[in-house]
Amino acid sequence: MKTTPWLDLNMDRVRRNIQRMADRARKAGVSFRPHFKTHCSSAVGKEFKLYGVRDIAVSSPAMGWYFARSGWTDITVAFVAHPSEIPELSELAGSCRLGVLVDSPEALKGVDSALPTGSRLWVEVDCGHGRTGVKWDDTLAIVELAKAVAGRRRLEFAGLLTHAGQSYSARGSEEVLRVSEESLRRMTEVASIFDAQGLESPRISVGDTPTCSVADRFPGAGEIRPGNFVFYDLMQMAIGSCDGGLLAVRVVCPVASIYPGRLVLHCGAVNLSKESLEWGGRTVYGAVAGLERWPEGPHLPGAPVTALSQEHAAVEDPEGILKGVKPGDFVAVFPVHACLTCWQFNEYRSGALRLEKMH
Amino acid sequence: MKTTPWLDLNMDRVRRNIQRMADRARKAGVSFRPHFKTHCSSAVGKEFKLYGVRDIAVSSPAMGWYFARSGWTDITVAFVAHPSEIPELSELAGSCRLGVLVDSPEALKGVDSALPTGSRLWVEVDCGHGRTGVKWDDTLAIVELAKAVAGRRRLEFAGLLTHAGQSYSARGSEEVLRVSEESLRRMTEVASIFDAQGLESPRISVGDTPTCSVADRFPGAGEIRPGNFVFYDLMQMAIGSCDGGLLAVRVVCPVASIYPGRLVLHCGAVNLSKESLEWGGRTVYGAVAGLERWPEGPHLPGAPVTALSQEHAAVEDPEGILKGVKPGDFVAVFPVHACLTCWQFNEYRSGALRLEKMH
Repeated sequence: MKTTPWLDLNMDRVRRNIQRMADRARKAGVSFRPHFKTHCSSAVGKEFKLYGVRDIAVSSPAMGWYFARSGWTDITVAFVAHPSEIPELSELAGSCRLGVLVDSPEALKGVDSALPTGSRLWVEVDCGHGRTGVKWDDTLAIVELAKAVAGRRRLEFAGLLTHAGQSYSARGSEEVLRVSEESLRRMTEVASIFDAQGLESPRISVGDTPTCSVADRFPGAGEIRPGNFVFYDLMQMAIGSCDGGLLAVRVVCPVASIYPGRLVLHCGAVNLSKESLEWGGRTVYGAVAGLERWPEGPHLPGAPVTALSQEHAAVEDPEGILKGVKPGDFVAVFPVHACLTCWQFNEYRSGALRLEKMH
Repeated sequence: MKTTPWLDLNMDRVRRNIQRMADRARKAGVSFRPHFKTHCSSAVGKEFKLYGVRDIAVSSPAMGWYFARSGWTDITVAFVAHPSEIPELSELAGSCRLGVLVDSPEALKGVDSALPTGSRLWVEVDCGHGRTGVKWDDTLAIVELAKAVAGRRRLEFAGLLTHAGQSYSARGSEEVLRVSEESLRRMTEVASIFDAQGLESPRISVGDTPTCSVADRFPGAGEIRPGNFVFYDLMQMAIGSCDGGLLAVRVVCPVASIYPGRLVLHCGAVNLSKESLEWGGRTVYGAVAGLERWPEGPHLPGAPVTALSQEHAAVEDPEGILKGVKPGDFVAVFPVHACLTCWQFNEYRSGALRLEKMH
């Protein structure tokens, strides 16, 4: 019975975004293993195959299982393995060539016996983000852990994997490039210790949408794993990863009422997520445009969502972008963080098509 | 296949919270029409019937339909009506006694002919929150709109309805009481104009968890519509609506890894929502405790979630609350905003029971 809001996908832009990133990877001479947590859709996933993509990353065994069922056979669960998910990892390993992350001897011990022969283990390295992984300057621990993995005859040491999430604090391509260079330098420094010890030089996997969108080269890396680029969003615009013309998803919802100085949409945090960004000294939860506005996409601040409760969004429109809009009319909200917004829905609409997704 | 995180519900506390609010309403001599958007569950809804509740509020026609199907027959859609939802409102009106909100002559015109005879229309008043409704000091517009509603023979003018959401900015019971008194004074001032014009005195419906939890009396009001109180959360603790011993839902999830100064949980914004609160100069996305900690519940700051991405939560533990916890162990995260967190799940667990919910 509930028909709105819905998630509107621009498939031309999705294809262009995939093609663009696949081209970047090819030109830079690195493998392309997109992270599928942003779209979580077998239908969107299928598009990647047209651009030669065979390997993917996901963020949980459940998500891996969802994509294994739709024919993906090489899957890295890009989330540090922990003992409570061993049954699921083990089941998943039965239906694809599995990659798993470890960050300590205990994590290795926890998953070791549960994984089938040939499973690949990455050592997760924290190259400055401060979230997960062994800190890049703790080279001894990294090398010892890699040796311990390599010592397991049944398993394969895949290399060193990092997520330079500190790129999300960067603003503008120069700052993003600095993050890219610094994080790659840290990773190659770690790799050089392997060389110095006469060990095989480890493969390096990096991946976050800002650095992968801005840098042309990834010296030292063998693989990139960006995810968000498939849709992009306002946060990526604010960082400088893209312009509004690349944004490929938006939430369509009705205007509920119009008051002096604001419009109120029947669309809330349960649809958009509560993710926000600071823009011009204000907190922004989305940018609103008329339904015809795909061509250029939104600009910032445009008509920002400035207050968001469970089911209400309040929108200011200093530029008159929504002039003439009445209660009951539909408008489009471009999300701050596409990954979180898309998670709120169980399908995409693209023209007359409905595309299934995990939820 | 995905088994975690899950939403753990303490039914004893749910019952105590319902009983407590039902008692407050009875003592204050007002009707009790709980808002069901917080739990969105027919199973939790059923508990309210044991405390004499017959009338409910919801925030969309779809939510109304969900509860109508489980036997609720008196439902206010506490969201200003707009033309795009007329088919759904009209369908819902066929299966319950419906209450609808209007905030302008256009909104009235939009829904008027779609509603069956006997439907009740509330005029929504903005008593200071600044979100929706006719501003309380625009008394002429309020009275004219009420007259226009009353002039429709087929429909019933139900009264004036407001949500004093400004109570969420209050900290401590004195500030909450001030919001309660001010908003009720504004509403009764509007009502006095009806009296002065020789019109029937309108019924007043108010409702937000902070004022309903703190105030003992609601002078002038005929009905209260709180929702969040059924579970409460960290935000209500910060406001002063409750203590940790009343918190009735928490998210159970595994510890993924432990680093110096932080634990990382496999639990992210897709589970908790990105809602945050400021506490002691920090941004907090949840409070973590061991699974045995229902008795007192959490305190603030406790072991706060201080960083939250799509699937990772970073937790600091200055007080050693989580001492001895290892990767793979399960912990409980008390949410900042229960309404948004619960929306992320499609069931509750309560002991061995699984309780169905809308999603």
